[in-house]
Amino acid sequence: MSRSLLVYGGSGALGRALVAHFRSLNYNVTSVDFRENEEADANVVISREDGAAELQVAGPRIASAVAASLGTMKVDAILNVAGGWAGGNILDEDLYKNVSLMLSQSVNSSVIASRIAAAHLKEGGLLTLVGAGAAVSGTPGNMIAYGLAKAAVHHLVKSLASNGSGLPEGARTVAILPVTLDTPMNRKFMPDADFSSWTPLSEIAERLQRWSENSDAVVSGSLVKIVTKDGKTEWINV
Amino acid sequence: MSRSLLVYGGSGALGRALVAHFRSLNYNVTSVDFRENEEADANVVISREDGAAELQVAGPRIASAVAASLGTMKVDAILNVAGGWAGGNILDEDLYKNVSLMLSQSVNSSVIASRIAAAHLKEGGLLTLVGAGAAVSGTPGNMIAYGLAKAAVHHLVKSLASNGSGLPEGARTVAILPVTLDTPMNRKFMPDADFSSWTPLSEIAERLQRWSENSDAVVSGSLVKIVTKDGKTEWINV
Repeated sequence: MSRSLLVYGGSGALGRALVAHFRSLNYNVTSVDFRENEEADANVVISREDGAAELQVAGPRIASAVAASLGTMKVDAILNVAGGWAGGNILDEDLYKNVSLMLSQSVNSSVIASRIAAAHLKEGGLLTLVGAGAAVSGTPGNMIAYGLAKAAVHHLVKSLASNGSGLPEGARTVAILPVTLDTPMNRKFMPDADFSSWTPLSEIAERLQRWSENSDAVVSGSLVKIVTKDGKTEWINV
Repeated sequence: MSRSLLVYGGSGALGRALVAHFRSLNYNVTSVDFRENEEADANVVISREDGAAELQVAGPRIASAVAASLGTMKVDAILNVAGGWAGGNILDEDLYKNVSLMLSQSVNSSVIASRIAAAHLKEGGLLTLVGAGAAVSGTPGNMIAYGLAKAAVHHLVKSLASNGSGLPEGARTVAILPVTLDTPMNRKFMPDADFSSWTPLSEIAERLQRWSENSDAVVSGSLVKIVTKDGKTEWINV
């Protein structure tokens, strides 16, 4: 039986890289995002309206659409790569807006992906969420909102990895904590940065594949910081 | 000049205890809550509508109302005791609702109180937020939503205590992490519990007073767990 996975946020830069990687290995890949990823085997397209709705509206709608698409299929992995970034300290004029946005993009997407995992992940399967290396400690200067939302995601991973969380038996939950990803968007907006300290998306795809296929390759509940230096990437448990 | 403070959530059980304690010491006390606390010197009453609004609506409205009440007065301490509790693991039928509620009650109130502190706290003043002892590690079984929201608050404290957060010079930010408070409501709903392991509200009032009046009494950025056993309360940095 072929392997399968669901990418939550499958049309963003990292999501597309994951879909392409796992498709090349003949996985059955479902993408969930605001727009279709034509490389995926199946797409669950979320309306902008649902995406912007409050969690108790968006959550059930997205979960139902995923259930309709997957049917009775259980997947080997659910990889949530939805998220975003907003800056600012406590005085920032967009503070309130940014807190809402970060909670929605990081926490709500992670909660929805986790709920999807509870329903559709195989026993022993892998759920990954996206944390942030910066959020392991305080983020005072420019990332008050981003940091607190990612800290909530880190905590959710700890909860889901513990007994009684409601995930399928033996399921593993891990947060990846990127620093900066080497995406076209980041290159566009930070053209003078040192790209050799950015993490190639292919590295992440290969690592998540290894974790998914080898239950001993990662410990459930881990927060794994991804540090790239001089073009070399290390994966560090924090 | 008399001392002053603002209690965010001044009409709940802990809020009322704080207002009463500091009023008895002749502090000028402003209460912010959904209903008036007649013991306070001044009240900022939040409408239920504003309280339920999204953060970018509620935040500016509440901050403006506080600014109108305080005028140019800077306060010695801002004590946020707003919050709530909701149970459930990832399978709970109210998961989405509870995540929204916990984020609103704990994270949004903490962000608003922090923003008020940025505008109205004295240099060297004290801002306290409410975390949770349980949220220091994963909360899988019955507190997925509560735990992640409190983890976000813990992170916010770390951010606010660091340089560049935007709080006034020398301001201290601390989270208190209660286990169970000895309130009338808790006695009503848990009549058979061991009350000698619940923290009396007066202990918290006295401790927050000491922290407020002595800048060396607590280190900014601390998460302080409040553990009561056999009627004796310990304050433990975690």
